Amino acid sequence: MTISIGLLVFPNVQQLDLTGPYEVFASAPGVTVHLIWKDLAPIRSATGLMLAPTMLLADCPQLDVICVPGGAGVNALLTDAVVLDFLRHQAAEARFVTSVCTGSLVLGMAGLLEGRRASSHWNAVDLLPRLGAIPTEGRVVRDGNVITAGGVTSGIDFGLTVLAELVGEDVARRVQLSLEYAPEPPFDSGTPDRAPAELVAQARAGMAASRAERERLLPPVS
Amino acid sequence: MTISIGLLVFPNVQQLDLTGPYEVFASAPGVTVHLIWKDLAPIRSATGLMLAPTMLLADCPQLDVICVPGGAGVNALLTDAVVLDFLRHQAAEARFVTSVCTGSLVLGMAGLLEGRRASSHWNAVDLLPRLGAIPTEGRVVRDGNVITAGGVTSGIDFGLTVLAELVGEDVARRVQLSLEYAPEPPFDSGTPDRAPAELVAQARAGMAASRAERERLLPPVS
Repeated sequence: MTISIGLLVFPNVQQLDLTGPYEVFASAPGVTVHLIWKDLAPIRSATGLMLAPTMLLADCPQLDVICVPGGAGVNALLTDAVVLDFLRHQAAEARFVTSVCTGSLVLGMAGLLEGRRASSHWNAVDLLPRLGAIPTEGRVVRDGNVITAGGVTSGIDFGLTVLAELVGEDVARRVQLSLEYAPEPPFDSGTPDRAPAELVAQARAGMAASRAERERLLPPVS
Repeated sequence: MTISIGLLVFPNVQQLDLTGPYEVFASAPGVTVHLIWKDLAPIRSATGLMLAPTMLLADCPQLDVICVPGGAGVNALLTDAVVLDFLRHQAAEARFVTSVCTGSLVLGMAGLLEGRRASSHWNAVDLLPRLGAIPTEGRVVRDGNVITAGGVTSGIDFGLTVLAELVGEDVARRVQLSLEYAPEPPFDSGTPDRAPAELVAQARAGMAASRAERERLLPPVS
């Protein structure tokens, strides 16, 4: 029996949020990965790479895992009733309800993070209380059947964690080996507490407009 | 002035070899990333994700960086005169001649690794002497203007290293921060010496047919 994993794909998705876990999942035998959107036309990701949906949102059968990646395009999903309804519908029966990066904001807007510990990109995790979630820094945060990843590259750690849950740790380890995932970042600037303050300020400035829009779209602090 | 980076894309490319460094490069200001192939029709990657070329090989202007990713599809490139000529032509003037994973076998077949230290996927690095290269295990191996990465996910470490060379370490660190690249693999099985022997044997078995084909196509040991 095939395990089906659905990754939402949408305009201005951060492609590595999606392509990282995709490669982990699709490298395992017996796993089918769908890229789900409202139509099948190619979609421009945030940094330009084109991605082709493979499954219409309207036609999507029940998935074992639903996953929402992040990126600037998340903002348009926060108030998209079709997407939020789809996520609620899938989440009711899915084994795992998941996100990478700012995809957790979309899960939250669908009401799926109420009272749950959840992660997000470091520049968004503080917004999670506005969605009823308990903000929890971490590359992979699990609360029941809700598994949320931190920013972008966390999706690879997340993918291996979810894969181990689905098909066992041995298969996940074999996929890790085949992808030679023994990372050695050449610099130590992957989180705000490790990067120089000036670079953190520059990164925040680069994301300020998108973040301001999110703050307008999310429910107020209750 | 824009820095232009060209990633070769081809049928059965390992998409994360390409999408990892793509996201690193394309997240930096002033960098343009091209996906280069013989035609512009969408291409199926090794695990199914479709990729769309953006630049015809025949039309490609001189690049600052040429990069060959790996994957099962590499085998067809090893004897592809059009591709090998293109790589030699670009390499003559490029600032950096690079590869991820088994892409180094293609650079080698183009004669670009003669006498150079070079890396590859752990299951291919031992083949490099047949191409005149000095096999060197490592996630990022530099010899002059030739920079070769190890397997698949090494491409992210590689991307940050190359980006720092092109636009400075501060920009590379800022990209690392925006991609939250502070990896925490949930398991320690990313290399053959760290994974259980049984899993290494299984992984080798899964790649045996592709490797046997490579061995037939590469020049014999001299």
